[in-house]
Amino acid sequence: MGVVVQNIERADQAVIDRLAACGVATVHEAQGRKGLLASYMRPIYQGARLAASAVTISAPPGDNWMLHVAIEQVKSGDILLLAPTSPCEDGYFGDLLATSAMARGCRGLVIDAGVRDVADLKTMGFPVWAKAIFAQGTVKETLGSVNVPVVCAGALVHPGDVIVADDDGVCVVRREEAEETATKAERRMAAEDEKRKRLAAGELGLDIYKMRERLAEKGLKYA
Amino acid sequence: MGVVVQNIERADQAVIDRLAACGVATVHEAQGRKGLLASYMRPIYQGARLAASAVTISAPPGDNWMLHVAIEQVKSGDILLLAPTSPCEDGYFGDLLATSAMARGCRGLVIDAGVRDVADLKTMGFPVWAKAIFAQGTVKETLGSVNVPVVCAGALVHPGDVIVADDDGVCVVRREEAEETATKAERRMAAEDEKRKRLAAGELGLDIYKMRERLAEKGLKYA
Amino acid sequence: MGVVVQNIERADQAVIDRLAACGVATVHEAQGRKGLLASYMRPIYQGARLAASAVTISAPPGDNWMLHVAIEQVKSGDILLLAPTSPCEDGYFGDLLATSAMARGCRGLVIDAGVRDVADLKTMGFPVWAKAIFAQGTVKETLGSVNVPVVCAGALVHPGDVIVADDDGVCVVRREEAEETATKAERRMAAEDEKRKRLAAGELGLDIYKMRERLAEKGLKYA
Amino acid sequence: MGVVVQNIERADQAVIDRLAACGVATVHEAQGRKGLLASYMRPIYQGARLAASAVTISAPPGDNWMLHVAIEQVKSGDILLLAPTSPCEDGYFGDLLATSAMARGCRGLVIDAGVRDVADLKTMGFPVWAKAIFAQGTVKETLGSVNVPVVCAGALVHPGDVIVADDDGVCVVRREEAEETATKAERRMAAEDEKRKRLAAGELGLDIYKMRERLAEKGLKYA
Amino acid sequence: MGVVVQNIERADQAVIDRLAACGVATVHEAQGRKGLLASYMRPIYQGARLAASAVTISAPPGDNWMLHVAIEQVKSGDILLLAPTSPCEDGYFGDLLATSAMARGCRGLVIDAGVRDVADLKTMGFPVWAKAIFAQGTVKETLGSVNVPVVCAGALVHPGDVIVADDDGVCVVRREEAEETATKAERRMAAEDEKRKRLAAGELGLDIYKMRERLAEKGLKYA
Amino acid sequence: MGVVVQNIERADQAVIDRLAACGVATVHEAQGRKGLLASYMRPIYQGARLAASAVTISAPPGDNWMLHVAIEQVKSGDILLLAPTSPCEDGYFGDLLATSAMARGCRGLVIDAGVRDVADLKTMGFPVWAKAIFAQGTVKETLGSVNVPVVCAGALVHPGDVIVADDDGVCVVRREEAEETATKAERRMAAEDEKRKRLAAGELGLDIYKMRERLAEKGLKYA
Repeated sequence: MGVVVQNIERADQAVIDRLAACGVATVHEAQGRKGLLASYMRPIYQGARLAASAVTISAPPGDNWMLHVAIEQVKSGDILLLAPTSPCEDGYFGDLLATSAMARGCRGLVIDAGVRDVADLKTMGFPVWAKAIFAQGTVKETLGSVNVPVVCAGALVHPGDVIVADDDGVCVVRREEAEETATKAERRMAAEDEKRKRLAAGELGLDIYKMRERLAEKGLKYA
Repeated sequence: MGVVVQNIERADQAVIDRLAACGVATVHEAQGRKGLLASYMRPIYQGARLAASAVTISAPPGDNWMLHVAIEQVKSGDILLLAPTSPCEDGYFGDLLATSAMARGCRGLVIDAGVRDVADLKTMGFPVWAKAIFAQGTVKETLGSVNVPVVCAGALVHPGDVIVADDDGVCVVRREEAEETATKAERRMAAEDEKRKRLAAGELGLDIYKMRERLAEKGLKYA
Repeated sequence: MGVVVQNIERADQAVIDRLAACGVATVHEAQGRKGLLASYMRPIYQGARLAASAVTISAPPGDNWMLHVAIEQVKSGDILLLAPTSPCEDGYFGDLLATSAMARGCRGLVIDAGVRDVADLKTMGFPVWAKAIFAQGTVKETLGSVNVPVVCAGALVHPGDVIVADDDGVCVVRREEAEETATKAERRMAAEDEKRKRLAAGELGLDIYKMRERLAEKGLKYA
Repeated sequence: MGVVVQNIERADQAVIDRLAACGVATVHEAQGRKGLLASYMRPIYQGARLAASAVTISAPPGDNWMLHVAIEQVKSGDILLLAPTSPCEDGYFGDLLATSAMARGCRGLVIDAGVRDVADLKTMGFPVWAKAIFAQGTVKETLGSVNVPVVCAGALVHPGDVIVADDDGVCVVRREEAEETATKAERRMAAEDEKRKRLAAGELGLDIYKMRERLAEKGLKYA
Repeated sequence: MGVVVQNIERADQAVIDRLAACGVATVHEAQGRKGLLASYMRPIYQGARLAASAVTISAPPGDNWMLHVAIEQVKSGDILLLAPTSPCEDGYFGDLLATSAMARGCRGLVIDAGVRDVADLKTMGFPVWAKAIFAQGTVKETLGSVNVPVVCAGALVHPGDVIVADDDGVCVVRREEAEETATKAERRMAAEDEKRKRLAAGELGLDIYKMRERLAEKGLKYA
Repeated sequence: MGVVVQNIERADQAVIDRLAACGVATVHEAQGRKGLLASYMRPIYQGARLAASAVTISAPPGDNWMLHVAIEQVKSGDILLLAPTSPCEDGYFGDLLATSAMARGCRGLVIDAGVRDVADLKTMGFPVWAKAIFAQGTVKETLGSVNVPVVCAGALVHPGDVIVADDDGVCVVRREEAEETATKAERRMAAEDEKRKRLAAGELGLDIYKMRERLAEKGLKYA
């Protein structure tokens, strides 16, 4: 506790953009079905979709001091990601912090806790994925850390990892695996385009994926 | 497990359409306050309202193989309804399966588990009522069954039962009771129209429903 | 149980309107971070924002009789607030009751239970903050009370207290403290305007709030 | 609602006793991994283990009237099983009802709601599997039904079905399948005894169940 | 926040002892089915049963400073009762604080948050009713208040109110109503003794409470 | 997925034993208030207290195949720790697997999922900390991994890390930090012994920890 790591490595912006284009579900599959944050992490408004480098925050319950510290560490294109040290739904973040974060080029917030001023945040176009919407105020008394590894909503996140977020939720991609994952995800999307056309034309997955024989072997009976 | 029932009986389409016009709350009341699925079953987008015949699926946790099997059993105007054999929030269903289902005339999905690609599903106009929005991928390893009775979100559903769903949630109507329920629901709607006018004009429910005497008998005191 | 208090005091309408203009998060902070209802109290549609005097209802689980009684007690500009005597998600309230309430000038409903006909309520412009959306019907058999103090979603509410509600949730302001709270909230908004400009211009909270020294004293290390 | 079925069929007592001897986990497996009630159904004290015929109760939330009606229907060796018509944690049942039920030969209670007087119930040796321990009182105003099919904690239960319950939870066995399930469960227990000895002697499941080859085929790598 | 009220009134000890003898369920009923804390408030070990005067604590999430302040306010026979200002499960209290509290004559703790060292507390015979068992440590940075009214687990508690707690949970009795409630509770117990004997002898509640006629009027049908 | 790491490093057994003697709460504090698993991880029976080296398992929902694989990797004194790849409460583990694990010297199980045969496990003296007790059976179809880093109930665990578990829950200590943490924890225990005596003698924490001045500075008022 009480450490701010100032120089973190980030993935290449072009790679980050490619991941954004693929979306959460595809990226999650492409990297071997890992990296998802828990399903309770929901967007405060629908339609946002992004990928960005994580500036991570470990903060005590009900204490948002470290958000101010973290904003100074944000570079354009980053996303803030906060994990409380014990479960908490307080409203750590609102429109003033969002104003400050946007001025630094911050793209959004992922927070395993609460957020407030959500009508303002929607108007501002500042997306947040949160555990709760809750106006409960916080204090500024106890240190946490910035840019250390954290477990956020069940997923391990290192500073500089790529956060992909959309209406399906949030997925983390290890910085070292970002490029490979982007390539796999794009390949997956291409393959899906092909399948989508065949399915739309009425072909069945049972036939496209050649499932009938294996289903029969497993013992599926038609009555 | 491992059974696909191919020929199920469905309610008359005209009856199904009448139930759709009544909506969940009215149908639930009309059939004696039964048949509701749990309140955690929420639409992934607002504004959809439908009634359709259930093609039921019993599937293992984290395994969406039976959805491919079930889509072959869908007839135009049906809805898929999936109950996992143990609690699960994984994303069994996304835009590819929705494409395939729509090509078969499927009207939507009710799933006591998770769904993904929700932005795409909204764009496609494919409504889903689900327990969770979660991108978590699934496997295709273990058999389940199609068109067997299931308990879904606390409600017993037989294949061919009528599913009514809107922004209030989901209600099941036994196929054998569909016509009678539609008639009762329509009568209820007519009666409500009458009352709505009187209430809008400022009359009180206390007077319209003649509650004052019974309240006094029960001992209600005005201070 | 079984008491209806008919004459309750209300705060001055001008004060209520000033509180509405400030919103939940600001009012909550202005009165010393108290009065919030639990985070599970969510609006059934986004964008509503109001303040109103509470007509309180204590009702048994699954019994909505007292809502009819309470509507007679509503004066123009009031809001209904219902707390069940034990946890319940049933749909106590729908479009007919909303029609009646609106005819009396009721501004909305806060209910630590369920609500139904939510598509209609949205169309009517009748806002509700609820624990659940659930079509489950209720009975009219057991008395409760109207305009008695209740604990609703974890907050103590007296009849005539001011309820402030928006997309962030719901906050209660004691009637006796409404004017003082409005004044403090407005002062807070003015101060925030100033800070918002500086933050938007790129100044950091660390500097505006002079946090650097105290962070260092607490032992924050930059690596 | 409002129906009491007086003559229900029960399984043979000898079969019921055989199921009791097998326990919940074994019976659940023996009948094809079905019939479990949700994991939140927990015993109020540890160590009870039984099987009994279900006298089912469908009751409104917060209304325990039907328990009195149901006790008259109990025959020696039965178990009461209550499902509320909407989710409820109220304390429907306490030591007086248990005294009455025991006087009729009732073996216990399964309730998807709350129970109270748990210290007394433990002293009396009256086992209960419940969703909650909660002293909240109930009313006697609204009818429900006795000995109709109910969905209890996610499982469909018909009157006269066999309820098996122990520290692992609760499982329902269809009356018609009770004998076959008992036989399968006993076979399973015998097979497990054999395996238990080999495992206790240090043999690995990998070898006993010949899993190594299939794991390798699936691609398991040892590093 | 930041207030310690030093002189609170307490109920008469003899009255408190009479309430303890009646237990939670009976006291709750005797005072008109009110005053119960939420069902998630569970004892850390079974078998404790007490009544005591509440020394109340309002504390920030994750900050147990006020417990030290509160212990100085404890008089022999009191119970500590802590409500966090926002939901929290951290372990505010362990064996050291219990040692200190016991030295002051404290009878136990009711906490709408977490507790730790539960094996030690059981050995010491210091009962706790808590929302969670969680070892998570807390800080001492932010003020709360002692002996102010709080909402704890859904119930309003004033300092000096009588807390009744046993294996069924926790109930609060207003100090001013303690004597009357004790008298009603004792009367209830006496009446129950009579009924218990008749029920044990096989009489039915249907007959003792003369329910048959009213059930028939409501429409109950025997099939 | 699909990797079994066979040679993992473990902490020194003497250090592990020292951590066991300190218990969860003390170890958690000693290492800077980190490493706790979520509060829902509860022992299936009370009184167990241990420390052991983690053999970690990442397993699909509802599939316990990897437990068989993992048991071969257990050395005497180890503990199994399983994290499902998505939330699951199924009963992955029962008395047969416990028999096998005990034969290998396994000390217990930590599982962010369900366990069954809990009465047998208690009789065998095989402690389990689990999210749920649930008899639901699992399949053996899909690979997971053994001895890879996992996030279990919100905490990151590497193979060979030391797991400390008792009635307060579960805490993980990084292998590399085990010795230092043991030393700090023992120092903490010694310091607590001293304080416990003074508190038992009636001294107040306010005085022992010299809190009065700082409380006054923060503004605490005595009324």
